[in-house]
Amino acid sequence: MKNTKVCLAERPNGLPTSETWAYQDELIAEPKAGEMVIKHHYVSLDPAMRGWIRAGKSYIPPVEIGAVMRAAIVGEVIKVNQNKLFSVGDFVSGPGGVQQFSFTTGQGFYKIDPKKAPLTTYLGALGMPGMTAYFGILEVGKIKSGDVVLVSGAAGAVGSMVGQIAKLKGCKVVGVAGGALKCQYIVEELGFDAAIDYKNENLIAGLKTHCPDGIDVYFDNVGGDVFDAALLMLRMHARVVICGAISQYNATSAMKGPSNYLSLLVNRATMQGMVVFDYADRYQTGMAQIGSWLADGSVKTREDVYDGIAHFNDTLLRLFSGDKIGKLILKVIED
Amino acid sequence: MKNTKVCLAERPNGLPTSETWAYQDELIAEPKAGEMVIKHHYVSLDPAMRGWIRAGKSYIPPVEIGAVMRAAIVGEVIKVNQNKLFSVGDFVSGPGGVQQFSFTTGQGFYKIDPKKAPLTTYLGALGMPGMTAYFGILEVGKIKSGDVVLVSGAAGAVGSMVGQIAKLKGCKVVGVAGGALKCQYIVEELGFDAAIDYKNENLIAGLKTHCPDGIDVYFDNVGGDVFDAALLMLRMHARVVICGAISQYNATSAMKGPSNYLSLLVNRATMQGMVVFDYADRYQTGMAQIGSWLADGSVKTREDVYDGIAHFNDTLLRLFSGDKIGKLILKVIED
Repeated sequence: MKNTKVCLAERPNGLPTSETWAYQDELIAEPKAGEMVIKHHYVSLDPAMRGWIRAGKSYIPPVEIGAVMRAAIVGEVIKVNQNKLFSVGDFVSGPGGVQQFSFTTGQGFYKIDPKKAPLTTYLGALGMPGMTAYFGILEVGKIKSGDVVLVSGAAGAVGSMVGQIAKLKGCKVVGVAGGALKCQYIVEELGFDAAIDYKNENLIAGLKTHCPDGIDVYFDNVGGDVFDAALLMLRMHARVVICGAISQYNATSAMKGPSNYLSLLVNRATMQGMVVFDYADRYQTGMAQIGSWLADGSVKTREDVYDGIAHFNDTLLRLFSGDKIGKLILKVIED
Repeated sequence: MKNTKVCLAERPNGLPTSETWAYQDELIAEPKAGEMVIKHHYVSLDPAMRGWIRAGKSYIPPVEIGAVMRAAIVGEVIKVNQNKLFSVGDFVSGPGGVQQFSFTTGQGFYKIDPKKAPLTTYLGALGMPGMTAYFGILEVGKIKSGDVVLVSGAAGAVGSMVGQIAKLKGCKVVGVAGGALKCQYIVEELGFDAAIDYKNENLIAGLKTHCPDGIDVYFDNVGGDVFDAALLMLRMHARVVICGAISQYNATSAMKGPSNYLSLLVNRATMQGMVVFDYADRYQTGMAQIGSWLADGSVKTREDVYDGIAHFNDTLLRLFSGDKIGKLILKVIED
C-alpha cells in the first residue's frame, strides 16, 4: 500500500500551476505508539488554501516548501497503535492534508458519523465552511429579523449557508454569484429572495433593483468590484463581515482595496474580519444546529466532488474560475 | 454695515480654486421677529468642507450652488428681535457659514463663555474637532490603558486631541504628521511618545521602530498610503476608527481604497466609521471634560488663525497642503 502526497514545490505567482506541486509516493509504515493511520476518502478544497501557500504573516503559518499541502479531510481509521481516543473503523475529520493517508496522534481530528450525513457533508455544511457561515453571519454580522443581507460567493460552500441561515432568521437575502446556473440554484433551490449574476448583469443596477433601500449586512467572500459596489449600498449602522477575498487571492500586483470605504463613515458602519478558528470551542453547537436544519430540510447543501488526487491542481483552479457549485471536494480514495 | 458672504459658485474638480466661490455683499437688515443678528469673529475651516461641496449622498446634504458656504463660526449677538434664548452681547457658536454676519432664529447655536477660553478654542478643542476626538477615540476606538494608539493627521485639530486624550488614558501614542516642525510639536509640546514624519521618513520603517509590537487602535484622518501602512501593523482585535481621509478628498480619479484591508481578517480587527453629530446629546459632557483638561493644563491646544474673509480659499487650501498646525481658523471680523 502506498500513500501519494501532494507537497508544495514552489510558491506561485498568480494562479497555482502544476509546477506549484510535487507528487511523492511513500510506502505505508506501521503507526508508532500513540499514533494511527487514517485512510483519506475526501479532501476539502478551499479558497483559503491560496493564502496558506503565500509567504508571510497570516492567521496561521504558511505551508512550508516541501511539506504536504494543508487541507481538511474526511477518512477512516485503518490502523491504531495504543491510541485511546480512536479505534479502527472510526470515521474522522481533521487536518490530514492533500494525501491519501495520514499518520497522526489524532490532534485536531474528531469523529464523525457517516450514518447522520454523507461523509462529504462533513467537509461542507458540517465542516469549516458551515461553521464559518454560522458564526460569521450570527456573531459578526449580528443579523436580526427584517435585515437586508447581501452575500457574495453566494453559491459557494460558505455563501450558500450564510444566505440560508439569514433566511431562517427572518432576513431578506440577496446573493451575488457568477452565471445563470448558480443564480437559479440559490433562488430556486436554496430560497434566496434574489440573485445578481455579476458576470452577466450590471452589479450596481442589480443591487438597486433588489435592495432598493440598501443593505444592513454584507457578507464578503470575494473582495474586488463586488465589495466596492456593496459598500455603496450600506444603510445606517450596517455591518460588513470580511470572510474572504477570492477575487484577489491570485493577484500578481497590489490587491484592490475598497475605494468606497468612506461609506463606513457616512453610514456609521462597521467592518470586521473573522477567522473561523476563533469559534472552535463552539463548533459543537454550530454543528448540532446545522445538523438539525439539514435533517429537517430547513437548509440544503451541495458538494461538487471531483475524482483523483492526480487532479488536485486542476480541481483547485475551479475555485478561482468559479466552475463549480457548492462545496468543492476531491475524492482521493481509490475504488 | 455690510455683510460679505462666500457662496458656492461651482463644484470643483480636485482642489477648490477662486472660481469655486462667489463673493457677495449685502446690506445688513434688521432682524425679523424671533431672529437675531450675529457678528462673526472667526470661521472654522475643516477638511469636511471638501465633502460638503461634493454633489451626492453623504452624511449631510451638500451645499447648494449659490448658497453661503457651510461653516461653524464663533461670534457675538449684536441685534435681537423677540428672541428669548439670546441677548445682545452673548457670544455664541454655531453653523453661521462663511460670511461676516448671520441672521438666525438661533437654531444650532449655543452660548460660549469667552472668559473661560479664547473664542478660537470654541472652534477647536471645545468645538467639533474636540468632540470628534473625544467620542471617536473613547467610544469608537475603545482605548484602554496600555494600548498602542496610532493617529494620523496628528498635528491637526482632531489628531492632536486624540493623541493627548489617549495619553491621559494610559496609552502609548504615536503620531504621523508631515514635516519636522509638526513632529516636534506633537512630541515636545503635546507629549506624544513618538512621531513619524511621513513626508521625510519611510513610513513602514518608522512604524516598525516605534510600534514594534503593532498597534491596538488606529485613528485615521488621512486615508491613502498612511492608512495602508497602518493596516499592516494591526494587532489582534485592533480597532480602526475612520474619521476622515484628507489625502483623498481632492482626488480627481477613484479614491484609493486600503489594499491591506485583509489585515482586518488576519487580526480579527474592526473598522468603524464615525460622524461627530451622532454624539450631539453628549457634547456637554465632552466639552466639560476637555474644558477641565485645558484648565489644568492636561491638554494643550493650538489654533492657526489667518486674517480676512478675502483669503478664504487660500487659507482653506492650507488644510490640504498641510501648511498649518493645529486648528485652522479664518478671522472675518474687521478691526
